[in-house]
Amino acid sequence: MKLTDKPITNFLDELASNAPAPGGGSVASLGGALGAALVSMVCNLTLGKKGYEDVQGDIEDLLVQAEALRAELTGLLEEDVKAYTGYSVAAKLPRTTDEEKAARAEAMQAALQVATDVPLQIAEAAVKVMDLCMPAAEKGNKWAVSDAGVAVLMAEAALRSAALNVLINLGSLKDLEFAAERRARLESLLAGKGVMRDEIYDYVVSKL
Amino acid sequence: MKLTDKPITNFLDELASNAPAPGGGSVASLGGALGAALVSMVCNLTLGKKGYEDVQGDIEDLLVQAEALRAELTGLLEEDVKAYTGYSVAAKLPRTTDEEKAARAEAMQAALQVATDVPLQIAEAAVKVMDLCMPAAEKGNKWAVSDAGVAVLMAEAALRSAALNVLINLGSLKDLEFAAERRARLESLLAGKGVMRDEIYDYVVSKL
Repeated sequence: MKLTDKPITNFLDELASNAPAPGGGSVASLGGALGAALVSMVCNLTLGKKGYEDVQGDIEDLLVQAEALRAELTGLLEEDVKAYTGYSVAAKLPRTTDEEKAARAEAMQAALQVATDVPLQIAEAAVKVMDLCMPAAEKGNKWAVSDAGVAVLMAEAALRSAALNVLINLGSLKDLEFAAERRARLESLLAGKGVMRDEIYDYVVSKL
Repeated sequence: MKLTDKPITNFLDELASNAPAPGGGSVASLGGALGAALVSMVCNLTLGKKGYEDVQGDIEDLLVQAEALRAELTGLLEEDVKAYTGYSVAAKLPRTTDEEKAARAEAMQAALQVATDVPLQIAEAAVKVMDLCMPAAEKGNKWAVSDAGVAVLMAEAALRSAALNVLINLGSLKDLEFAAERRARLESLLAGKGVMRDEIYDYVVSKL
């Protein structure tokens, strides 16, 4: 059964338990999906509404993007748990002979690379959700402006949460070129996003 | 059926739809509940673990607090939707005679007070979750330190999301004393929490 098919209370129970997955990575992707869903909500409350005739095309575009990101982030929630499982399986491989030790180390490194790339994808998608929030706040139904504000708060929290889950793995990666490339991508994703969050939040507050 | 009994995908679908509830207020409480659940996870990964003998009492206390806050925030998710429904019902009351108009205005003000106080409770609970994150990061299982980081990110996003939902209603409240008291409480809750989030995030990053 997929995690996202479970009732919210059950997901929260599993999260709170001593099982290492689902954990922070799953919450990062869920946070991003919640942000995307709120952008969609703002769009759906704007489409066909009187007074918003001029922005219908823009809002339709925003909705398509938000829904694609919601689907991507919901999928990444499952991928994050699979990535953790992949690493656990590799760590439990036999390690008696030198050959076994080498094979286990290689499998663990491969699993670590996946466990780095999944939260990096979550971070990339979360940034794309953030990019939709100001247009949603400015062009969307003014009665839903606070929902665009909540969207950016959740998406930025998702970005930073995903960042923590990338950073956990970077230090254990033996392929230093791979690690450096991922770190550079992460830093580029994080740059300026705290300021962007505050700007959108302040804009929303000014409209309340 | 309670919203929290619904599968995550269904909740996201309802959120994204053009129904005004669930919306940002529900996401605020869910964000707080996710943060609380992650604090519980850190605690559950620390209880009974070798090397953490000295902090078992502290961790037990943190777990009790985190689980109480998770229950409170999960309950507030339903309360937020009820508060919205209460306002909608009041707004649809008849308004033909002067008596009806007065009764409707009074019912709407009463509903607006509830719709202000529910997100204020969410904000208060989110701050309490934030207060647990640094102890969880410092004393909890070091392998779960990133989960304590994600917890504070989600709880702070929940706090600010709840704040937006308090602020929406403050301007429409006719009881200015009530509004001023709620605004002062909200400002006190928000003060310093951005800095607190950054401090805990930076501490977590320093441990990765």
